[in-house]
Amino acid sequence: MSETKNILFLNEWRDKVRTFWNDAAAAKVAEYGFVFDIPALDGDIENFDWKTILPRYDAVVTTWRSPVCSKDFLAAAPNVKVVAHCAGSVASVTDATTFETGVRVTTANPLMAEAVAEWSLLATLLAQRRLETYACMHPGEKMKWNAMTNIADLHKMVIGLWGMGDVTKHLLRMLSVLRPAEILVCSSHAGEEELARYGAKKASLEELLTRSDVFHCLVGVNDANLYRIGAKEFGMMKENAVFVNAGRARLCREEALLDALRTKRIRAILDVFHDEPLPEDSPLYAFDNVIMTPHDAGYTGRDRFLPFILDELHRFFTGQPMEAEISASRRRTMTHEGLH
Amino acid sequence: MSETKNILFLNEWRDKVRTFWNDAAAAKVAEYGFVFDIPALDGDIENFDWKTILPRYDAVVTTWRSPVCSKDFLAAAPNVKVVAHCAGSVASVTDATTFETGVRVTTANPLMAEAVAEWSLLATLLAQRRLETYACMHPGEKMKWNAMTNIADLHKMVIGLWGMGDVTKHLLRMLSVLRPAEILVCSSHAGEEELARYGAKKASLEELLTRSDVFHCLVGVNDANLYRIGAKEFGMMKENAVFVNAGRARLCREEALLDALRTKRIRAILDVFHDEPLPEDSPLYAFDNVIMTPHDAGYTGRDRFLPFILDELHRFFTGQPMEAEISASRRRTMTHEGLH
Repeated sequence: MSETKNILFLNEWRDKVRTFWNDAAAAKVAEYGFVFDIPALDGDIENFDWKTILPRYDAVVTTWRSPVCSKDFLAAAPNVKVVAHCAGSVASVTDATTFETGVRVTTANPLMAEAVAEWSLLATLLAQRRLETYACMHPGEKMKWNAMTNIADLHKMVIGLWGMGDVTKHLLRMLSVLRPAEILVCSSHAGEEELARYGAKKASLEELLTRSDVFHCLVGVNDANLYRIGAKEFGMMKENAVFVNAGRARLCREEALLDALRTKRIRAILDVFHDEPLPEDSPLYAFDNVIMTPHDAGYTGRDRFLPFILDELHRFFTGQPMEAEISASRRRTMTHEGLH
Repeated sequence: MSETKNILFLNEWRDKVRTFWNDAAAAKVAEYGFVFDIPALDGDIENFDWKTILPRYDAVVTTWRSPVCSKDFLAAAPNVKVVAHCAGSVASVTDATTFETGVRVTTANPLMAEAVAEWSLLATLLAQRRLETYACMHPGEKMKWNAMTNIADLHKMVIGLWGMGDVTKHLLRMLSVLRPAEILVCSSHAGEEELARYGAKKASLEELLTRSDVFHCLVGVNDANLYRIGAKEFGMMKENAVFVNAGRARLCREEALLDALRTKRIRAILDVFHDEPLPEDSPLYAFDNVIMTPHDAGYTGRDRFLPFILDELHRFFTGQPMEAEISASRRRTMTHEGLH
């Protein structure tokens, strides 16, 4: 048997205990013979001197509001060879110096991404079927019995995906079995061969905007695409096209989105907003061409995060490739902000 | 080149011209060298003596409200070797004597079934995400920002499919990529091997009712299952399970469904109703645990029906197997009523 590995949950645990720790995680810890320490900080994370305890650990598990594992921070943790992020983007818990130390980084991002992809699939079907125009979803709403002309044929629709991260990869798998007319992906990382497996094709952002019936914003925010979708870009979209955002609000300019919606030329299905929670007096609440969900696209499956992270650590310690390892260059494509 | 084939559109055409005839159908007729006759009956189908024109045709295309192609009817059509139904179930345009004549029968059912499967996928995701409890889908509806506990984890859900017709086959393909905990299928026709390809398993109706988080009614109505789901069966369903019906209303007893919904133990997503259009004073309109659509699950893709039927006829006349041929035994599993 290999040596016992000591793992530190690098967070103010009491807040997170309900979200992440469960029987499945306990079973993994026992199965892999880990020591898994949860410091009882009661939220006093700012004043805790991690350096006093770091030397005894072989790995740290981070999540939302964990300290940044910079080179300086990790200098106090000579045995830590892996940072495992029990959440999505690692941009908030690592920085450019992290990777200089040789530490390896992994994340539960593929699990959260799959949930966002499920939401995006639902949004695609809502965009196609337009239930809000004829269905009864609440007591007293009357069905419109002959509103079929509102329904588009999925097999004639062009679905555009902006970005080629974990969400897009899951969504490609889900969309391909639906056989839409075309799936277009705009991303410099997208490989033609990988796309072809899903019947998808590479496209420029301009092509994506002008040809998509449903346009999904799934790219990580970076300097190049911050507020990239403005008045001109909304103006390029097809009549009746649906702008879907389960990625980041700041990929588009808020005023340009509102103006585009006012013209009724396009519709929108949104899970993210420039201000969150969305202010009660937001103009978005007045539109009949908008469907909104409260930033919950990536919510499901939280109780699977820590068991997955423990699997990743086991893979690392037994010399197997990790499934969700993040490289320094991949980190730079991820959005720098918490999902919530 | 083979001899020109004469095809009769066996219906009061004027009503249906917008639904089925289009450029794609015209192109197929030209490509295959068919003569495609549309009698100009102006709806006077009852009084038209089909026998005067039937002898000159090699095939008939039927749709909703076409005459029944019984042995007696086909006696006047000695050259008709194939009946191609430009709609779903062939039960209304054929009878038990049809197949005695040796005539072959095909249908656009797989296309309609795919649309119903798409609706059923949407219903599954709505059952999981419960948008109606927290989303904004109409002007003025406020989002509930912390309603995430209403969302189920798709990967822990058991999806039950009652029936193994064309809809289920499409839906299995769509659901399998979503990786639910289990997919159960109740049908005497379901082959274990075919199901295993989609990660699905065979189950009894009792098992389907007691174990499913989402229960899809997709079986054709026949003597054995008419009103099969009553008070006892609804009582077997799990707390919070969702009864989804895009098949036939008469698979369940209306009063039993209403009683089950009144208890709030279960929810429902319905596309079919015991009376259609659903009467304005239906008790279903008062429930907050019901989502309803106006019998449009199978609506999309109508303009692909006739091109598909012309492909089927071309396959038949050139000695190739038809893709959607219906046997006498398969016919007996199909519901005897129009979809509308």
